[in-house]
Amino acid sequence: MTVYSGNIKINTQGEIDIIDITENIKKEIGKSKIKNGIICVFNPWSTGTITTIEYEPGLKKDFPDFLERIIPKNIYYKHHETWHDDNGHSHVRASLMGPSITIPIIKGELIHGTWQQIVFIELDTKKRTRNLITQIIGE
Amino acid sequence: MTVYSGNIKINTQGEIDIIDITENIKKEIGKSKIKNGIICVFNPWSTGTITTIEYEPGLKKDFPDFLERIIPKNIYYKHHETWHDDNGHSHVRASLMGPSITIPIIKGELIHGTWQQIVFIELDTKKRTRNLITQIIGE
Amino acid sequence: MTVYSGNIKINTQGEIDIIDITENIKKEIGKSKIKNGIICVFNPWSTGTITTIEYEPGLKKDFPDFLERIIPKNIYYKHHETWHDDNGHSHVRASLMGPSITIPIIKGELIHGTWQQIVFIELDTKKRTRNLITQIIGE
Repeated sequence: MTVYSGNIKINTQGEIDIIDITENIKKEIGKSKIKNGIICVFNPWSTGTITTIEYEPGLKKDFPDFLERIIPKNIYYKHHETWHDDNGHSHVRASLMGPSITIPIIKGELIHGTWQQIVFIELDTKKRTRNLITQIIGE
Repeated sequence: MTVYSGNIKINTQGEIDIIDITENIKKEIGKSKIKNGIICVFNPWSTGTITTIEYEPGLKKDFPDFLERIIPKNIYYKHHETWHDDNGHSHVRASLMGPSITIPIIKGELIHGTWQQIVFIELDTKKRTRNLITQIIGE
Repeated sequence: MTVYSGNIKINTQGEIDIIDITENIKKEIGKSKIKNGIICVFNPWSTGTITTIEYEPGLKKDFPDFLERIIPKNIYYKHHETWHDDNGHSHVRASLMGPSITIPIIKGELIHGTWQQIVFIELDTKKRTRNLITQIIGE
């Protein structure tokens, strides 16, 4: 049984950029040499999230439209009083969605559906460089 | 330390069928012979989710009612332009809720509250056969 | 490779109390002696949740305000027919948010951002004592 720690560095193009990280995760699994176990991908920032989606142009708009409906950008957030910034909605969206995902690895393969990709979603209001942590445990 | 891979096959009765999979998970833990560790239950499709709920008739209606309020079935989704189907809301709901759950196993027992069951929720618009992956790591 | 089981006992001050459990988690990691692995923190009740947030006074109001907008306390829940209680919204909020979080541990340190704390959120309508389960796997 081994533990492998790696990372996935991505440059996001600004708010609501949805980036398919499935291939990045598979590369990390290859590097780890672990054949059976789990991978935890964790985002150590409070304005981004990781989830799964069918990565096609329609949903890449539908999902942000949904977030804007339930957590609008332009309502008042008390967070702005603390820092005088503009990303209260980014924080609320990230706390709702959560910072990580845990996925099985079987026979060296990441488990996921054909129409199910793993994505990082930039929730902050500007371009950011994100360094996601990939922790793999198995044998 | 061992890794055990199994699965839970369920037939759902259509949209918003909420299925209690707690006993199915306990059977998998029994088969694994693992006494202390964690189990990750993963849904490899993009229109279903796994969470916990008190499994009683009231909440089995309250939770779908909530999903319909925040992600209505009959508004316009751009996803429908891609595939000419009808399940844009199913995908958005699944991306919000996430594809998996990770739970501790202690002394051979799945940790969960007396009034807290683990459930699969069918989010797609029709009956489906779902094969959930159960990955257990421990000793 | 070892498995360590511990717990974090907290007394909540009532509905929407958001409690920073980051230091409690770090103490558990210290006790486990595990240097590299993952920790799963699990809430075995159906009316609380665990997530990450920048723990500052503004967001401690913004996040509850958001929950109240999408899952209001004072609308009708069928759950109340089952038990004649008042916490249908608490259950729906908990099922949405999920019962647990999984986080990497590297070189003895819990991975998280400087402005990202791990929190337990009391979703029930009264003060509760909560005993969270901390399961650590690694070496």
